Amino acid sequence: MLYRSFSILSAALMLIGNAFAADVSKSKPPTMADLLTASKPSDWRVPDPENTLYVELPSGRVVIELASNFAPAHVANVKALAREHYYDDLAVLRVQDNYVVQWGDPDAEKPASAKKIQNAKRTLPGEFDRSIDPSLTFTRLPDGDVYAPEVGFAKGFPVARDPKSNKMWLVHCYGMVGAGRDTAPDSGGGTELYVVIGQAPRHLDRNVTLLGRVIQGMEQLSELPRGTGGLGFYEKASQRVPIKSIRVAADVPAAERTALEVLRTDTPLFQDLIESRRNRHEEWFQYQAGHIELCAVPIPVRTPK
Amino acid sequence: MLYRSFSILSAALMLIGNAFAADVSKSKPPTMADLLTASKPSDWRVPDPENTLYVELPSGRVVIELASNFAPAHVANVKALAREHYYDDLAVLRVQDNYVVQWGDPDAEKPASAKKIQNAKRTLPGEFDRSIDPSLTFTRLPDGDVYAPEVGFAKGFPVARDPKSNKMWLVHCYGMVGAGRDTAPDSGGGTELYVVIGQAPRHLDRNVTLLGRVIQGMEQLSELPRGTGGLGFYEKASQRVPIKSIRVAADVPAAERTALEVLRTDTPLFQDLIESRRNRHEEWFQYQAGHIELCAVPIPVRTPK
Repeated sequence: MLYRSFSILSAALMLIGNAFAADVSKSKPPTMADLLTASKPSDWRVPDPENTLYVELPSGRVVIELASNFAPAHVANVKALAREHYYDDLAVLRVQDNYVVQWGDPDAEKPASAKKIQNAKRTLPGEFDRSIDPSLTFTRLPDGDVYAPEVGFAKGFPVARDPKSNKMWLVHCYGMVGAGRDTAPDSGGGTELYVVIGQAPRHLDRNVTLLGRVIQGMEQLSELPRGTGGLGFYEKASQRVPIKSIRVAADVPAAERTALEVLRTDTPLFQDLIESRRNRHEEWFQYQAGHIELCAVPIPVRTPK
Repeated sequence: MLYRSFSILSAALMLIGNAFAADVSKSKPPTMADLLTASKPSDWRVPDPENTLYVELPSGRVVIELASNFAPAHVANVKALAREHYYDDLAVLRVQDNYVVQWGDPDAEKPASAKKIQNAKRTLPGEFDRSIDPSLTFTRLPDGDVYAPEVGFAKGFPVARDPKSNKMWLVHCYGMVGAGRDTAPDSGGGTELYVVIGQAPRHLDRNVTLLGRVIQGMEQLSELPRGTGGLGFYEKASQRVPIKSIRVAADVPAAERTALEVLRTDTPLFQDLIESRRNRHEEWFQYQAGHIELCAVPIPVRTPK
């Protein structure tokens, strides 16, 4: 019983890259597993190494794709910080259950011992939203959203849009990466970064700058011990998890890079994938939801063969 | 900067039970922290020990409130299983990132060595939904839902309703507890239980029996190492986390019980709390969402003074 309880629910994700007989010929609509098996190389893309960060933890590497179309100044600044090795030997300071993991300089508020910044900027104006860019293909979801007039995907990221105000913005789904800030809206800049590890905190949308998404290694953040201090901060310095380094992938020797492909979100295949998740035709399901919300749509990532 | 980045966002939850000056006199609408500080004893309830489970892990106790109004047969069976010590020395077998933690009998599929059941039942018909009971006060959310015609809270649990079909059902929010099942809809029964540890998997609603919610100790499940096998199963027996025991709280000596109070969801105060989360008036916020989705509404729990 137990080994099969959820086997059909999420088999598709596990099967990416595995041999799996495509089964799109049957009358039943394809599952996500079927679709991925039948996918063509052109349905996938390789993230730009110039737009990819490697966060090196003692447990291994976390890979972040940067959202340069949505937070160009923050992305540029985070890369500048990485390139001057600002993040090296900083630490995960906070893990709040069902909310965020956050890292930065434990001494940030002590002027004498705070880590110095050479060329990058310490703070930037917020990039909480931007004008709608029609050149960014928007794959809109059909089922609406509790928070925004329109939601969907653009450039591989979860996005909301408001045509009336001509604004679009990144959405706080699981795995999204943002730049922590203080009360002033221009007090962030990327020296502290957080990653969503629970139910989508949509109340943060348009309040803080999102700048990327974890595309591999998420479990190394989500399984960290929760901090027992207020807001999930670690109470003792010894509990903090060291950030060994953060590098722009383009600066890492090619042989040491992590080869990954991300499913494109601007293709007919991705539209079919959305449909396969709105109505689940795997045998296990008794009831089909007929709907899907933005943060429930998976964006598959695979290791090339 | 970093210590305050999120301090206002979620201070309220951390401040429950702490001294905190109420600030409801100002012209600004109250925050959740204000409301909880101003709450009366009658805004809180003590979960029924006969309807509460203690899951004893090596790391400590996880407390589950059972949803007897929604899954009466499963709740009765889980209590019967606990009372015959069925769960003792079973194990967490599976931790799938952004999805579920699941425990049960590692030998469940081996007839010779599977743990025997004395008086409880191994399987039950699914209790995936039920008829709407007008006597269960329903605190409806004003902002709709992607999946269901109506959502809100009843008896302290997140609930969806469809007046047309006269059905109501529990919703897969973070911390909800369900009975794993095989492909057959009547193959569950509570011998294996799962807990949601990520983005609400709403596609499971009405497909599997939810029977309770974790009200304390959630982090002991959510921070477990993710399994590296298919579907997050642990690949080696040595990785499994032992379930020392599961007991009905009423069977535990009073001095060994965990004293908890849960905020009632059928009060004017809870309505105000919902409003305080739809529009966040804490100083940090630049933009107020004006909406909230079901699984984003906190149900505060506190330790009585």
